[in-house]
Amino acid sequence: MSANDERALLTDLYQLTMLQAYFDQGMAETAVFEFFVRKLPAGRNFLVAAGLEQVIDYLETLHFGADELDWLAGCGRFDRRFVDSLAKLRFTGDVQAVPEGTVFFVDEPILRVIAPLPQAQLVETRLINLLQFQTLIASKAARVRLAARDGLLVDFGMRRAHGAEAALLSARASFIAGFDGTSNVLAGMRWDLPLFGTMAHSFIQTHDDELAAFEHFARSHSKACTLLIDTYDTEAAAHALLPLARRMAAAGSPLQAVRIDSGDLGEHSRRVRAILDAGGERAIRIFASGNLDEYAVHALRDAQAPIDGFGVGTRMNTSADQPYLDCAYKLQEYAGRPRRKRSEGKATWPGRKQIFRHRDKTGTMTGDTLTLAGDTPPGTPLLATVMQGGRRLTAAPSLATLRDHVKTQLAALPPELRRLDPAPPYRVEISAQLRELARQVDARQR
Amino acid sequence: MSANDERALLTDLYQLTMLQAYFDQGMAETAVFEFFVRKLPAGRNFLVAAGLEQVIDYLETLHFGADELDWLAGCGRFDRRFVDSLAKLRFTGDVQAVPEGTVFFVDEPILRVIAPLPQAQLVETRLINLLQFQTLIASKAARVRLAARDGLLVDFGMRRAHGAEAALLSARASFIAGFDGTSNVLAGMRWDLPLFGTMAHSFIQTHDDELAAFEHFARSHSKACTLLIDTYDTEAAAHALLPLARRMAAAGSPLQAVRIDSGDLGEHSRRVRAILDAGGERAIRIFASGNLDEYAVHALRDAQAPIDGFGVGTRMNTSADQPYLDCAYKLQEYAGRPRRKRSEGKATWPGRKQIFRHRDKTGTMTGDTLTLAGDTPPGTPLLATVMQGGRRLTAAPSLATLRDHVKTQLAALPPELRRLDPAPPYRVEISAQLRELARQVDARQR
Repeated sequence: MSANDERALLTDLYQLTMLQAYFDQGMAETAVFEFFVRKLPAGRNFLVAAGLEQVIDYLETLHFGADELDWLAGCGRFDRRFVDSLAKLRFTGDVQAVPEGTVFFVDEPILRVIAPLPQAQLVETRLINLLQFQTLIASKAARVRLAARDGLLVDFGMRRAHGAEAALLSARASFIAGFDGTSNVLAGMRWDLPLFGTMAHSFIQTHDDELAAFEHFARSHSKACTLLIDTYDTEAAAHALLPLARRMAAAGSPLQAVRIDSGDLGEHSRRVRAILDAGGERAIRIFASGNLDEYAVHALRDAQAPIDGFGVGTRMNTSADQPYLDCAYKLQEYAGRPRRKRSEGKATWPGRKQIFRHRDKTGTMTGDTLTLAGDTPPGTPLLATVMQGGRRLTAAPSLATLRDHVKTQLAALPPELRRLDPAPPYRVEISAQLRELARQVDARQR
Repeated sequence: MSANDERALLTDLYQLTMLQAYFDQGMAETAVFEFFVRKLPAGRNFLVAAGLEQVIDYLETLHFGADELDWLAGCGRFDRRFVDSLAKLRFTGDVQAVPEGTVFFVDEPILRVIAPLPQAQLVETRLINLLQFQTLIASKAARVRLAARDGLLVDFGMRRAHGAEAALLSARASFIAGFDGTSNVLAGMRWDLPLFGTMAHSFIQTHDDELAAFEHFARSHSKACTLLIDTYDTEAAAHALLPLARRMAAAGSPLQAVRIDSGDLGEHSRRVRAILDAGGERAIRIFASGNLDEYAVHALRDAQAPIDGFGVGTRMNTSADQPYLDCAYKLQEYAGRPRRKRSEGKATWPGRKQIFRHRDKTGTMTGDTLTLAGDTPPGTPLLATVMQGGRRLTAAPSLATLRDHVKTQLAALPPELRRLDPAPPYRVEISAQLRELARQVDARQR
């Protein structure tokens, strides 16, 4: 989670068995690896890069702890000289990457590691683990943001996220992608994210009477009070709270919102809006939650349901329709020679690559060119150096900056890609230079 | 991950806003919450309970750190007296639960917390987060085990797990459910799990010649050597490695296995088996990986593909077809009175409950009865007390013990539930006593 929690043994065993062989052969020349996505998941017209900051933290602090070295020495798989060499291992390489929040597509590398082979190899597993997850969540959350238009969006998903780190990082990734905040308190503390929270059904149930529960909660939280109204009968609760709402308004601390968490959210929100309006409480907002994702939010928006904010949890937090990306971290070059994997269905473009993005006069993206770094086609190059000699080059951008970047990126997407329905693929042209290099590498390998 | 990493603020904001209101009202009588699954996901005939040990660790060590208390005091939402009271908060309650590895079904509570209301409320979010994830993974992994019959199964999924904790806990949960080990080194170190690992395609590609890569790897890992043979041409590699395999066997360290990671795994395995057998290398095992899940493993088994072991990653580790459970932690009783939630589609059975399991003479499960604790129908009760007064009652069972328990449980399932295809639901009878209590609670609540 924070850099201090990182353990070098958070990796696949094969990284270490390969490192032993590299050590025995004295293979430590410069290796170049790139991270990219092989295929867009169904239901995604674009991806949003995220997780770079956690990768930089990880690389900057990479080292084996004493307990880890002891364990390695005692496990019977590695020789002592090799384990001793690991005690000194630090990441001394360079990293080039696209900024977090950048929209990208199939085959486009969003991160490149250039480092002595053992370092570049060892970090593969955790690096993929960090980049794929936040990219997955940011890409899903961006769709929810597009569907919600300017409605309030809150990450409610901690409980069904896959563990603590997933909960924390999805709060971060969804905020970058356009959510307004999270219910996850530790994420709020760690990244200074706006926090949102109301009450659970259990709060109502611990009281013998729903209205008494409302009164008690309002007394403790007069400054920011949202009441959950669906425990027994949503519309009856909306009626029943009107006298309390009038007293709160009279006391200068008006009730902010009601939350509906079950049933037909569109239908309930309309009825509740009518009840509140008829009671003179036009300023009370309606907040909805329960099984929401971009499709449900879009349907509610389309039906003009009078919902002001959405709590979106599980389905965003687990990227439930597509819970992983077909992504890879692949060797592109070793000891100065380009490399290429040709396994069936998994061939990759060799060499160090750069993405050039093209835009029309209005700023709308019109296509990308994938070519070799050093090439200078028209367009804006997306990858830039973020670490040199194992150190980060500039301070981490604020999450607000990254969030603005995503907003700008989404606004520049071709309109058909912004829709939830599948769009024709965005044009990514492979340059003639890159095709020629692939041909040469194929001719040389075996 | 370990208990020491736990933070009390790893929770939803609303738990704390509710606690402030409970504090203001002096509401601290005993509350009873139960964790259960509301609905079986499509493609699951049963669930396997997992995650209890992590819940016990969490509850035993629950406390607010000084930095957390400072943050709470400064965030402007809570009053000082309340925050001061949190400094002293520890979990002092009881926990009743089914043993990890127990098969269970819809509406059956697998864990009950009995504690002063603020404690029982605060822990909701992390408790669900821990129980739902490991239960999700153990339930998926058990299906892979059933499909693989007695084949070797290794968790390969760290890279696409949702963060570090998901990677660690899915290694644990899949081992309990019948996997033989994991590639995740830190999980191996933490829980003494068998580790497996070979080499990546990048290892082959850093060498100018595939055979040189094989030779180098074999030299460093003569005791346990598996070669990855699909980087360029799977069958050509199988032919090419025969002289090396003969030399290794002659030197007393025979090549253990080859791994195939792409293409038609059934077809390749048959051809590779034929090549190895024709070369006199019948003892070399074939290990397969790449996009595997229970359906793919079952299809390979059904087609009698000569595969000895399977690396199963992403789809097991993310429970890709069903990445979350519709589960809840619900108030059942407060201050001695049973409670029931009645929100649309989310009604729950009230009171403290017990599951009684029925078996036929051969030991096969024939149905469960869900009733009130204290009731004594026929059958074996599944929930037992695991924590009392905030302390665990017995030492954590070994993972080997839990794994044996799952094996016994899976063997006792009705045969139709063991198949991958959807089966008619297992019979869970709701007792007359429980129905009567629900009726009484409904009559009382509003």
